Amino acid sequence: MSDTDRRSSADMGMTPRGTTREQALALDAADPLAPLRELFEVPPGVLYLDGNSLGAMPRATPARVQQVVREEWGQGLIRSWNSAGWMTLASRIGDKIARLVGANPGELVVADSTSINLFKVLWAALSVAAPADAAASGRRLIVSERSNFPTDLYIAESIARERGFELKLVDADDIPAHLTERTAVLMLTHVNYRTGAMHDMAALSRAAHEAGALVIWDLAHSAGAVPVDLHAAGADFAVGCGYKYLNGGPGAPAFVWVHPRHVERFWQPLAGWIGHAAPFEFKPGYRPAAGIGRYFCGTPAVISMAALECGVDTLLAAEPLAQAAGHATAMAALRAKSLALCQLFAERVGVLCPSLTLASPLDDRRRGSQVCYTHATHGYAIMQALIARGVIGDFRAGDPSHPKDAADILRFGFTPLYLRFADAWDAAEHLREVLDREEWRRPEFNQRQAVT
Amino acid sequence: MSDTDRRSSADMGMTPRGTTREQALALDAADPLAPLRELFEVPPGVLYLDGNSLGAMPRATPARVQQVVREEWGQGLIRSWNSAGWMTLASRIGDKIARLVGANPGELVVADSTSINLFKVLWAALSVAAPADAAASGRRLIVSERSNFPTDLYIAESIARERGFELKLVDADDIPAHLTERTAVLMLTHVNYRTGAMHDMAALSRAAHEAGALVIWDLAHSAGAVPVDLHAAGADFAVGCGYKYLNGGPGAPAFVWVHPRHVERFWQPLAGWIGHAAPFEFKPGYRPAAGIGRYFCGTPAVISMAALECGVDTLLAAEPLAQAAGHATAMAALRAKSLALCQLFAERVGVLCPSLTLASPLDDRRRGSQVCYTHATHGYAIMQALIARGVIGDFRAGDPSHPKDAADILRFGFTPLYLRFADAWDAAEHLREVLDREEWRRPEFNQRQAVT
Repeated sequence: MSDTDRRSSADMGMTPRGTTREQALALDAADPLAPLRELFEVPPGVLYLDGNSLGAMPRATPARVQQVVREEWGQGLIRSWNSAGWMTLASRIGDKIARLVGANPGELVVADSTSINLFKVLWAALSVAAPADAAASGRRLIVSERSNFPTDLYIAESIARERGFELKLVDADDIPAHLTERTAVLMLTHVNYRTGAMHDMAALSRAAHEAGALVIWDLAHSAGAVPVDLHAAGADFAVGCGYKYLNGGPGAPAFVWVHPRHVERFWQPLAGWIGHAAPFEFKPGYRPAAGIGRYFCGTPAVISMAALECGVDTLLAAEPLAQAAGHATAMAALRAKSLALCQLFAERVGVLCPSLTLASPLDDRRRGSQVCYTHATHGYAIMQALIARGVIGDFRAGDPSHPKDAADILRFGFTPLYLRFADAWDAAEHLREVLDREEWRRPEFNQRQAVT
Repeated sequence: MSDTDRRSSADMGMTPRGTTREQALALDAADPLAPLRELFEVPPGVLYLDGNSLGAMPRATPARVQQVVREEWGQGLIRSWNSAGWMTLASRIGDKIARLVGANPGELVVADSTSINLFKVLWAALSVAAPADAAASGRRLIVSERSNFPTDLYIAESIARERGFELKLVDADDIPAHLTERTAVLMLTHVNYRTGAMHDMAALSRAAHEAGALVIWDLAHSAGAVPVDLHAAGADFAVGCGYKYLNGGPGAPAFVWVHPRHVERFWQPLAGWIGHAAPFEFKPGYRPAAGIGRYFCGTPAVISMAALECGVDTLLAAEPLAQAAGHATAMAALRAKSLALCQLFAERVGVLCPSLTLASPLDDRRRGSQVCYTHATHGYAIMQALIARGVIGDFRAGDPSHPKDAADILRFGFTPLYLRFADAWDAAEHLREVLDREEWRRPEFNQRQAVT
């Protein structure tokens, strides 16, 4: 996001200024996706604007998890690897996620964590882009964004150190200038975790390819949040998170996708037995499975995966509603509502909260499913005061070592599956009251704790 | 295991030959650990001898998992990372597992899968044992056992390839001869997954150290199965599995331990944000956490970890019963019962099933908590016929490419937490009937399926 995007939220001007609560209720009454909220448990008195950190619990999840634990494990025991389909769970859920991100069946699997999947694909991408015997090619750079989510940067830093690459961190606007004959891999998170700023996946993928580099997209804040079409965008590798917009539960497994043109060109180094071509032959000597199966590593986390599948199913449940409303896909309908929710919230905050500064891009095409603000001095305490009111967003500390990323951020994620227009209206009203009454001054809101 | 150990099971002769079912029942009546069975769900009609592949479900687990899903996630949402202690779950469970394996509090954590944790510790061990600037030292060998669990070998093969080491696979008896000035790391699974053969951890750790090498122990078939004392044995690194004898559920997270003398000497390469010294500062630039915390990677799998904790608690529940019976530790009492169960089963099979050949060591000191057999021709079908009777052991295919590992194995794991002496007696009786009636000839028992 460039500095010119930073202006008072009052200037956002996305929608008419004077939206009333009655109008918000009318938008809910006309919302074709409104029935989806019934698929979720949303605690009474809570306005949950943190689905970008941990999605809400689908109502189907507890019973499904109980089935896995009590019946499949408790009664079926080891037999359930076959009889209950545990062996194919990771691929089955992968195929469902594939529908949300423009991948084909059989190209995407659920496994491990986002960090570990990123390690797999970055290692593989470097080996394809700059093979050892082509060190003379001079492609020694991994380019990423300085405000990328830190775990991505840590993994890249580690791999760069181990393999003699250089991790080059730049501002978003400077990325194209750093795609050169020295660049092996461009590694980006599609939607920035702090500001919600969204990259143009197709344009940057094309620019990377034109420079002879490969591109990795982290879809942590995209999958289930914004339409993604990995094939149309020309992506090479992608990873993503199960516990944010996919509603998979705390620490849900992550996913990994590799374009078919690359998937068998390299063994990712976490060569565990589940990625072997024939894991049950129990033979020494690794033979990678065909296709994306080689991106598995150890035994899959069955209970967590069952919960993830319930979460993914809540997104697919939008498909018939979306089609009935004239949208081509579930994600198109969800995106339309997400933008409208963000606009309503930003419009109200712009009117009501002049001490906040919008930290998200104004342009819908450049923003994910969240709206963020900065406050000159007391962002942390303001968010704590809001949470005490049941309005749950979150706070992300800035990086004082770099001016463009120094600001502390108040994040408000808008999940169209379970949020109503009246919720967005009410949340803005709570924010106004916290500021007008200076509730954030209370000492209990000024003691920092770790929160993911 | 040497060839001289392979003899008819009738020769095992561990206990008097003529144990009657009444005597088995009397052993159960006198068993101080008998009440522990009530902590588990064991399906009616099932004799479960596969706890070495997937432990049975503790009765406490469904309610605890429901609490995590419905209350902590469903109602607490993101707040539960602090309010429900999710951030410290991996360390809390780690401290409990530490009690079972001779580690100290704060030295062991739960994270990821066994395969991934092995990757972390092997990478770190190689970096400590053969740092890049000491390549001239000539320590380029990773020594392991050819019949080690394949995932361990695949991970080692992958790292060896990436870093220019050589993976040297040898027979168990030949390990000491391969600990030389060329050896960087000895990597072994303490109890062999096929035969149950158990290494002398202290002797081999000492031999490795005398050769200037480091040693990694995979405790997959040891933790919760046999007494382990990592410190007393002089181990350097250890990993282990949560879903076998720790009863953590299918795909439960694994654990990792590093001796304090090594833990801060190297960054393991899976440098995810949860292993950062200050993950919530959200700063680029990896600073590893102090101690074992740097072996974390991505966001912990909360639901699966909650189930794992219930499993570990079933082992700790043995502590008061063990002490009342005069044992120093829970594992000492569990080991005594495990050996007695194995002896009873092997004695009965020796009498009843002359067509089977014992494939486990005779010496209690060299065997874990399982008893294994080979059958000349139809091991797979015999196990399927047994499973159809509700006697659940498992089958592990041999490696035809090597004579010593070529035999197919029938595995019977004995988990003293929930198995009775009468179960061991009855299982042998079923095995006799399958063989005497040639039930294994039925076509449906001869169609191979993948089973973990």
